[in-house]
Amino acid sequence: MAGSKKITIAHVAEHAKVSSATVSRVLRHPELVNPSTVARVRKSLSELGYSGIAGQPAAGTSRRTIVVNIPWLDNPFYGEIMRGVRVSAEAHGLEMLISWGSPDNVESCKRFCSMLQNCGAAGVIILCPLSAESLERISSTVPTVQCCEYNPETNIPFVSIDDREAARTAVEHLVSCGCKKLSIVCGPQVYKYARGRKEGFLEVIRAHDLVERPSWMLQIPNNNFGLAYSAICHMLESPNRPDGVFACSDTYAAAVIRAAKKCGLEVPRDLMVVGFDNTDTATMTTPALTTISQPRYDMGFSACNLLIERMDGSDSASSMLLETELVVRESTIRK
Amino acid sequence: MAGSKKITIAHVAEHAKVSSATVSRVLRHPELVNPSTVARVRKSLSELGYSGIAGQPAAGTSRRTIVVNIPWLDNPFYGEIMRGVRVSAEAHGLEMLISWGSPDNVESCKRFCSMLQNCGAAGVIILCPLSAESLERISSTVPTVQCCEYNPETNIPFVSIDDREAARTAVEHLVSCGCKKLSIVCGPQVYKYARGRKEGFLEVIRAHDLVERPSWMLQIPNNNFGLAYSAICHMLESPNRPDGVFACSDTYAAAVIRAAKKCGLEVPRDLMVVGFDNTDTATMTTPALTTISQPRYDMGFSACNLLIERMDGSDSASSMLLETELVVRESTIRK
Repeated sequence: MAGSKKITIAHVAEHAKVSSATVSRVLRHPELVNPSTVARVRKSLSELGYSGIAGQPAAGTSRRTIVVNIPWLDNPFYGEIMRGVRVSAEAHGLEMLISWGSPDNVESCKRFCSMLQNCGAAGVIILCPLSAESLERISSTVPTVQCCEYNPETNIPFVSIDDREAARTAVEHLVSCGCKKLSIVCGPQVYKYARGRKEGFLEVIRAHDLVERPSWMLQIPNNNFGLAYSAICHMLESPNRPDGVFACSDTYAAAVIRAAKKCGLEVPRDLMVVGFDNTDTATMTTPALTTISQPRYDMGFSACNLLIERMDGSDSASSMLLETELVVRESTIRK
Repeated sequence: MAGSKKITIAHVAEHAKVSSATVSRVLRHPELVNPSTVARVRKSLSELGYSGIAGQPAAGTSRRTIVVNIPWLDNPFYGEIMRGVRVSAEAHGLEMLISWGSPDNVESCKRFCSMLQNCGAAGVIILCPLSAESLERISSTVPTVQCCEYNPETNIPFVSIDDREAARTAVEHLVSCGCKKLSIVCGPQVYKYARGRKEGFLEVIRAHDLVERPSWMLQIPNNNFGLAYSAICHMLESPNRPDGVFACSDTYAAAVIRAAKKCGLEVPRDLMVVGFDNTDTATMTTPALTTISQPRYDMGFSACNLLIERMDGSDSASSMLLETELVVRESTIRK
């Protein structure tokens, strides 16, 4: 079949009368597949002359590259996700490059697609919040997967968490610790994560009939410690202040602890705080942070696996929401 | 001249009988150049048909891409450097991609060079500690500049700081605060920064005739909070412990503060700490960190400018050491 049209997993699936996912599994984990199916798929692979998994070129040829697009390089949240992506990419013989910045308007999205083409990207993982239009444009350029942030208006698969549910867990914990006047420190609402966490927050305070005060709902332009610190100081200096804060990142939670100290308040005695992400920051602060742990490594790893299935031609690759958990540390344990 | 060999700044310089740096300056900052020289250079540019600064292609053509190679993605140190690179790159119409991981052996260096070629990289900024051999190989593939880390055995230009001098400043500060039993928490000696800072540390303790105790000189495999924390706890629990720590990163310094708390020591009363980098971490800890501030944004910005000069064909681009400064905060101010 040398020189002919590239045979994809979808072709093999049709020929063997199985799903694309099954072909993928036979290639990667035959031990999980019924032996007669393995035999049938292998026969089709051989008859069609399937030339190997994407990103595993024959010896001597150069490795293919995937691009991961992240919104902020200086957010410690992304490091562990990238580690997961990289391990999966390396296992499949792929190079990984990181693109920093959101291609969030028509012009920058066109430039982004042109860059993907110029650098010969074999696929892309998007962590930026993008419009359906931008995502469709990117996805029609190279195989695309969304990670963490996702836009459910498209059919592009994603790996993420249930932000609303995770936020509910965090805020219910503050309520169970006796907090009655709750604040949220959140990121820009252009992010799905920010909208989801705010929804979860509001659901809990409404369910418990707690006060819903706009001046206690802070929205910070980005995951910036300094900006969050200033806004939180302002809130804590006012006569009527909250007794519990749900911070939508550990960076914000660290800013709450610092601002409390500045305002002469002791955490957790006068003010309790829950963070989000379980980055190193959560154990760098004094007191250490109660926080929501996200499976960041797993998200990156799974997103890359999903992308490889797409690159292999499978269109049955399905989205995933991974589990989070509450890690309780000093910032909510009253001595 | 369409279709002919690409005219570089070096050709223009030769033709106009000026240096490459002067041609570069005429293209970017003609206001800084003698008007008669500007006229002569512009005449040569026009006669040779010079087609524009690298990375500023004519309208309609696609933008060129530079690659920045960093050793650790999850080190907050790199964010601000990347910001500087990006601003310079955008100002010159270049795309920026980040490659994570050190191409530090022959095989990975070959793969790295092949990746640079495949993705059509127009230049590369290296922040990883590499052998002269690896650097020469990369530099013979695309124009190359070193940033932060550099190997002085090559002629490849770099932008960095004087680590020994900065360390001397930090350690002299601890001595001036009354510390007599000094410890250093350092990264792997494969890094020039780690060697330079350790040299500066030793120079100061020898100059003051202070005790030089191997068990107080900790070397951590990478900029990892958890690993540093364990090693520092072990040091602080022993009967003979230091009264001042020079930590070669804010992450290590945050680990010192956390470990001190675990061991029942109060910072700065029982133990003083100086960090390095002045990242957000330095104000997230309690007490806040005295630290050495590096001009991280400027380093990235200047490295990218230097790279663009190299891409323009100038080989007179010269290396730079930028200034650092000591920022004094709570971790060395006795109450």
